[in-house]
Amino acid sequence: MDETARGDLAPVTVAGLGPMGAALAEAFLAAGNPTTVWNRTAAKAEPLVARGARHATTLTEAGEASPLLVICVTDYPSAKAIIEGAGSALAGRTVVNLSSSTPDEAREAVGLAAGFGAAYLDGTIMVPTNLIGTEHAVFFYSGSRPVYDAQLAALKSLGGDHKFLGADPGLAVLYNTALLGLMWAMANGYLHAAALVGTAKATAAEFAPVALDWLVPSVVTPILHSMTKDLDTGVYPGDAGTVQMNLNAADHLVETSRSQGISTLVPSFLRQMLAATVEAGHGEGNYSAMIEVLRKPSDS
Amino acid sequence: MDETARGDLAPVTVAGLGPMGAALAEAFLAAGNPTTVWNRTAAKAEPLVARGARHATTLTEAGEASPLLVICVTDYPSAKAIIEGAGSALAGRTVVNLSSSTPDEAREAVGLAAGFGAAYLDGTIMVPTNLIGTEHAVFFYSGSRPVYDAQLAALKSLGGDHKFLGADPGLAVLYNTALLGLMWAMANGYLHAAALVGTAKATAAEFAPVALDWLVPSVVTPILHSMTKDLDTGVYPGDAGTVQMNLNAADHLVETSRSQGISTLVPSFLRQMLAATVEAGHGEGNYSAMIEVLRKPSDS
Ligand SMILES: NC(=O)c1ccc[n+]([C@@H]2O[C@H](COP(=O)([O-])OP(=O)(O)OC[C@H]3O[C@@H](n4cnc5c(N)ncnc54)[C@H](OP(=O)(O)O)[C@@H]3O)[C@@H](O)[C@H]2O)c1
Ligand SMILES: NC(=O)c1ccc[n+]([C@@H]2O[C@H](COP(=O)([O-])OP(=O)(O)OC[C@H]3O[C@@H](n4cnc5c(N)ncnc54)[C@H](OP(=O)(O)O)[C@@H]3O)[C@@H](O)[C@H]2O)c1
Repeated sequence: MDETARGDLAPVTVAGLGPMGAALAEAFLAAGNPTTVWNRTAAKAEPLVARGARHATTLTEAGEASPLLVICVTDYPSAKAIIEGAGSALAGRTVVNLSSSTPDEAREAVGLAAGFGAAYLDGTIMVPTNLIGTEHAVFFYSGSRPVYDAQLAALKSLGGDHKFLGADPGLAVLYNTALLGLMWAMANGYLHAAALVGTAKATAAEFAPVALDWLVPSVVTPILHSMTKDLDTGVYPGDAGTVQMNLNAADHLVETSRSQGISTLVPSFLRQMLAATVEAGHGEGNYSAMIEVLRKPSDS
Repeated sequence: MDETARGDLAPVTVAGLGPMGAALAEAFLAAGNPTTVWNRTAAKAEPLVARGARHATTLTEAGEASPLLVICVTDYPSAKAIIEGAGSALAGRTVVNLSSSTPDEAREAVGLAAGFGAAYLDGTIMVPTNLIGTEHAVFFYSGSRPVYDAQLAALKSLGGDHKFLGADPGLAVLYNTALLGLMWAMANGYLHAAALVGTAKATAAEFAPVALDWLVPSVVTPILHSMTKDLDTGVYPGDAGTVQMNLNAADHLVETSRSQGISTLVPSFLRQMLAATVEAGHGEGNYSAMIEVLRKPSDS
């Protein structure tokens, strides 16, 4: 791809050598990509230079060194400073930004890079540093599919799964944010459930296999999968169970939590969501109808 | 086991022939247990009699017919009416009650049955009627382990997994209730996440595989398993991530939901739980510390 390429692996530059950026640079080096590194605090480049990386001391140098610049810094303002710092050195090159940002920032970055003649792809890293370079790494991307297709071979040096989510550049970070919410929701539900069975002396060691190894994969996951069609068509037939039935059962969960002497915060919230869905006119629909409530802006 | 036994399968009586009781009776018949059935509305016994069941027309007859009486009716008051109706016909026999109830009702039932000289085991059915008699059936029991051990052979005719949860008779129903809460919490989190990615035109069909087939099994389940020790020891080291860090990220989830124009109900609640955990003094602890908040009775 470039006269500096060793074998057929593309040269890459990594800008940002915090824990994650350093892990990315190490993975590129381990895969054999000619790797240039840049960091605001230059000293962090040393261990990577010792492992074969070239050190760019200016952003112009960083931009010119490779057809692909991977940015991995704290946030979007920092990533923006790097793109602007490299400026026209990026002309004809590609920026893949793996720094945390918001959907709006990801959308803005496309134009920012284009102003310097550079292609842009937004991405998020879905795993901790120790999984980078392994088969368990997961990366999400969104924006220009041709840019993704052109860079995939190089990105594969980071290991694992690379998922392209769609044409909206904000999608990758939106998935990341949304999935974090799902994780917290599950964690809250799990902790309340653990507290509830704990009132009868069940330990987490006893509860975890039942909840996590049986209920979640064997019951909840299939139920959530079965909602797909209703969520995408907006039709919520209640013949196998209604929101109103769930609301009645939620009263029972609140009451049991209270009578067992623990917090009712989690079940009261679950009850509140079901009540709001009934109030929105979906009492005889199925649980998926709750998405109608969740799609509307909150009053507050 | 009894002079009426056909082969070595124990005779059983099923009281309550709603959708679930009828499924239980069918499974016993299919397995070859000599099966007697009773129902308040006698006509519901007919299809089962046609398949080989004996029809008890009084509760005395129902109690005397078999060493094991399985009750499956709407609620505890109905189950109680059946136990009291059979009365001393239950002497020396065992009642397994698979009707919905509360932990306190399950505890009360032990004494009620004992008053008539009967052993008692409380249980809950964790699957819908169509899975009864299959390998996918799941039943929870709690209370007297010897009673469970003595009846397990007969109960196995119902198929699937039979889990004994512990000596507190309230445990089976408590697990059932707690797991329902976990299921709702996951469903709410999933629906909010689907609504959030939906703002960038992602469909549920696109989101489900990422959320349900990757995030839940590969990320969330291992994280929740890793909390076990902290939950059981009450020590919450924050070195791999603190509640305060999660609270900051939750602000971002609320903000993203608002700026994408959808409901902030779910993320605001997640944020509120994290804030309550910080307020309780666990800001530098890890996420598991939230159980301290959830174990305390709510003010309201
Ligand atoms: N660590 C993980 O497990 C993980 C997992 C998934 C995603 N991520 C994401 O990866 C990105 C990097 O994370 P990290 O863990 O490596 O640590 P971080 O603390 O988020 O980022 C540190 C890096 O950002 C640089 N930086 C900060 N402000 C800058 C600015 N104004 N101009 C130029 N560079 C600046 C730092 O440079 P100096 O060295 O000069 O301070 C350093 O290279 C973040 O967006 C994070 O959300 C991390
Ligand atoms: N269906 C399921 O998928 C499912 C799954 C898990 C657990 N369960 C549990 O299984 C139990 C039975 O459920 P179901 O689905 O069969 O329907 P159900 O409507 O909950 O129960 C119907 C049965 O209860 C009887 N009954 C009601 N009140 C009675 C009373 N006062 N005295 C005597 N019998 C009375 C009915 O008799 P009549 O015919 O005379 O009205 C009928 O036999 C419930 O506790 C339910 O929570 C059901």
